[in-house]
Amino acid sequence: MPYIGIDLGGTKLAAAVFSAAGDVLHRETVALGDRAGAEVGSSIAERVTRLAAAHPVEGVGVCVPGLYRADRGTVWAPNIREWEDYPLRDELRSALGERVNLTIDSDRAAYVLGETWRGAAIGARDAIFLAVGTGIGAGILTAGQVVRGCGDVAGAIGWLALDRPYVPRYRRHGCFEDQASGPGLVRVARDLMDETTGYDGALARKTPDTLTAEDVFAAFGNGDRLAARVIDNAIELWGMAAANLVSLFNPEIIIFGGGVFGPASQLLERIRDEATRWAQPIAITQVRFAASALGGDAGLYGAGRLAMIGDGGT
Amino acid sequence: MPYIGIDLGGTKLAAAVFSAAGDVLHRETVALGDRAGAEVGSSIAERVTRLAAAHPVEGVGVCVPGLYRADRGTVWAPNIREWEDYPLRDELRSALGERVNLTIDSDRAAYVLGETWRGAAIGARDAIFLAVGTGIGAGILTAGQVVRGCGDVAGAIGWLALDRPYVPRYRRHGCFEDQASGPGLVRVARDLMDETTGYDGALARKTPDTLTAEDVFAAFGNGDRLAARVIDNAIELWGMAAANLVSLFNPEIIIFGGGVFGPASQLLERIRDEATRWAQPIAITQVRFAASALGGDAGLYGAGRLAMIGDGGT
Repeated sequence: MPYIGIDLGGTKLAAAVFSAAGDVLHRETVALGDRAGAEVGSSIAERVTRLAAAHPVEGVGVCVPGLYRADRGTVWAPNIREWEDYPLRDELRSALGERVNLTIDSDRAAYVLGETWRGAAIGARDAIFLAVGTGIGAGILTAGQVVRGCGDVAGAIGWLALDRPYVPRYRRHGCFEDQASGPGLVRVARDLMDETTGYDGALARKTPDTLTAEDVFAAFGNGDRLAARVIDNAIELWGMAAANLVSLFNPEIIIFGGGVFGPASQLLERIRDEATRWAQPIAITQVRFAASALGGDAGLYGAGRLAMIGDGGT
Repeated sequence: MPYIGIDLGGTKLAAAVFSAAGDVLHRETVALGDRAGAEVGSSIAERVTRLAAAHPVEGVGVCVPGLYRADRGTVWAPNIREWEDYPLRDELRSALGERVNLTIDSDRAAYVLGETWRGAAIGARDAIFLAVGTGIGAGILTAGQVVRGCGDVAGAIGWLALDRPYVPRYRRHGCFEDQASGPGLVRVARDLMDETTGYDGALARKTPDTLTAEDVFAAFGNGDRLAARVIDNAIELWGMAAANLVSLFNPEIIIFGGGVFGPASQLLERIRDEATRWAQPIAITQVRFAASALGGDAGLYGAGRLAMIGDGGT
């Protein structure tokens, strides 16, 4: 019997019907537009109900862009209005009835489950997905189990302390994310432009408000020296963060994904060199660094995998 | 039926017979003296055999000061000569016969199992023991399972990257351990004395070779300003490391133990304040910081717990 995976993003909802072998039998995507609160919940419920009617399924998996509180069945999703504590489980349970298994989890848990099912890390039981985009998070699998923590907050790697001294702006999204997420690259570029007299390269021709991480990568590709300093700084931090994952979890693979990897995937070898300086020396020889194989579909595949395995890990 | 716990240290061997409720029915300790290699192995085998004859037991747990390679049943223990890859499992299995359960694990795994069984974190399923002494390591429990990693190296937190720029001396034992272990405190004190002209406090009256972490704590207690700078530096690093554990694992408790905690346990409130600046803000509200309740017996209790639960976690 097939399975349904639903990947709720901040701006769109992707759904797929998977065979037990992981092949996509059907998929569809819908923009959320200006939907908020219960409108988002009923969009999901409606779509799940329709797909489950068309494809009799054994289980439904849903991943959400934030935290899933397993004890209460509610979701906190910072980019969806009125989803501070949204009762998604009860809503979907009502829509689906009792006979279909339902599993909900965070997007970062889904990413690592997707990649170990059908992506860059097939079969791995100690694997970490490092998602670097607008934010930074990690989906962590140890001995085949997703690490959730006592309050389902585990994997909040954007908050990694990597750089002394502490500065107050780390309060908003953490030291690592402040400098090494997509917006973090832009922040570092702006700071360097402020303190560099006489820079008139490509980034100086953008207004500070419109500068993007893509601009930084484009300028870096064209040999811009200020952009190279931004990227060097990020490589050091990505390498230190990866080293910390290696020393603490001793994983067999770290998968780099999210919007920034993407373009930063060309830098994996330099990131590994940096990580090798810091990490526990046995553990670093046991780990592979790889770019996401599923890209933007990692969450969708992971949701399909959640539907298959339920809460019990792989 | 009772259980036997054996805590092998670098200099001594402690053994205890536990009731199923965790009470100590019998205990004994023997110094290893100048024993090395197979002499250490046969000391353990002999003691286990004798105890198992006197107290018919259901299981035996052994913790070792290093890494236990579960796939091969061998131990790497840096402070025991000729224990690079010592076949402890086969030796004890021969001595015990097939009818007694045998479980071997690293000391840091035992510490957290001991504290969650009979110490500072009874019943906790997401708990971390941060052991700071000559080295720094962490025993990590997530959802009741010890995190081991793909090569049994997980928890090597002494290698945490916390401080840029990288300096070559981190290569020996990692950035965190270099500054914040017992010998790390001494290294930082020596560096500060080298660069501070006119310091003639208590630490200056020691020869550099004989300076110890205890001296640093004693001077700190007496208001010595250089010692205070050493401790301030360590508090920042202990706080950053604890913050990183909080953000990654979302534990309900972090237990501070090892020789340095001990004296540094008086500093837990300041360490928590430091961690609060860096950590994921929800996760930090969900965690307790506590000093080890079992102290030097954490490994022994943990070995007893290993005997009860086998490899399967709590």
